[in-house]
Amino acid sequence: MESSSMVFGEKDWLACCGSVKFAEEMVAAGPFSNYQEALDAAKDIWFNKVDVNGWLEAFAAHPQIGDSPSQSHKSPTSAQWSKGEQSTAITTATESTLQELYEWNARYRQKFGFVFLIFASGRSTPEILAEIKRRYHNRPIVEFEIAAEEQMKITELRLSKLFSANATAGSTTKTPH
Amino acid sequence: MESSSMVFGEKDWLACCGSVKFAEEMVAAGPFSNYQEALDAAKDIWFNKVDVNGWLEAFAAHPQIGDSPSQSHKSPTSAQWSKGEQSTAITTATESTLQELYEWNARYRQKFGFVFLIFASGRSTPEILAEIKRRYHNRPIVEFEIAAEEQMKITELRLSKLFSANATAGSTTKTPH
Repeated sequence: MESSSMVFGEKDWLACCGSVKFAEEMVAAGPFSNYQEALDAAKDIWFNKVDVNGWLEAFAAHPQIGDSPSQSHKSPTSAQWSKGEQSTAITTATESTLQELYEWNARYRQKFGFVFLIFASGRSTPEILAEIKRRYHNRPIVEFEIAAEEQMKITELRLSKLFSANATAGSTTKTPH
Repeated sequence: MESSSMVFGEKDWLACCGSVKFAEEMVAAGPFSNYQEALDAAKDIWFNKVDVNGWLEAFAAHPQIGDSPSQSHKSPTSAQWSKGEQSTAITTATESTLQELYEWNARYRQKFGFVFLIFASGRSTPEILAEIKRRYHNRPIVEFEIAAEEQMKITELRLSKLFSANATAGSTTKTPH
């Protein structure tokens, strides 16, 4: 029983990173005996095996920063986590900074073709605004790689949540056996 | 009349590079007084303005190397050029090397999610086979950038054809004025 407590399913991995290929490869690479093993596998899969379409798919699973997660999230777990990750941004936002962020999100998406992605935990709205303005000047391919690195930071935090939640309450989507 | 002979339309640029954004930006940046001006604009647009979705769109406009262009080409001009670019490959191919190329194309597409792209002019089928096998080991993002550079080489050759064809016979898709 003890050793099977770290068996996660595709839905668990999808809540960490919204690429189907990523989730499938994590299932194939698992089960993992601890968080570090899972993280090592996740990094290898994300940077070496998921193709550029998979990166775009994972980016598309995120809400626009400053928006309510419920509109774009397919995974309820991911929606809840996203809300937590943006809590500092939300408490430091004013109506005018939120409006500015909204406008820059639109400009960003217009230039790059995907949502602005940032590891938001602990970051205030003014900090996030400064980042989007700075990154907006990047070449599309450069920004694409930066977004993939931000996605990996988000995935890393979510994996740790998955493992700590599992240590106390078991996986939410584990099939009985 | 003389100065208008270098006015090309969206279809001309699309035959050089199958990204709609690329073609639109070339129209907006033109008209160009010579080939070099057009090439400089094309490089700037392709590497700095076309987003990753536009790169994928341009890649998708190419036939699989070794295949007949007529199956995937939307542009008749592009289909004809593609055939010319692959003429060395075609004359140096045997049934077995073509079969091997076909299999590697499938493996490549399976890993990277887009067609194997190579500046094929003057390259034999054995050379192309060696390249696809070598590049297959790359990380997806690395290969994505290499493919974009190969696309630019193809675009460069096609731009030169467009300008030399225009110098003798005028643009094929130019609207009368």
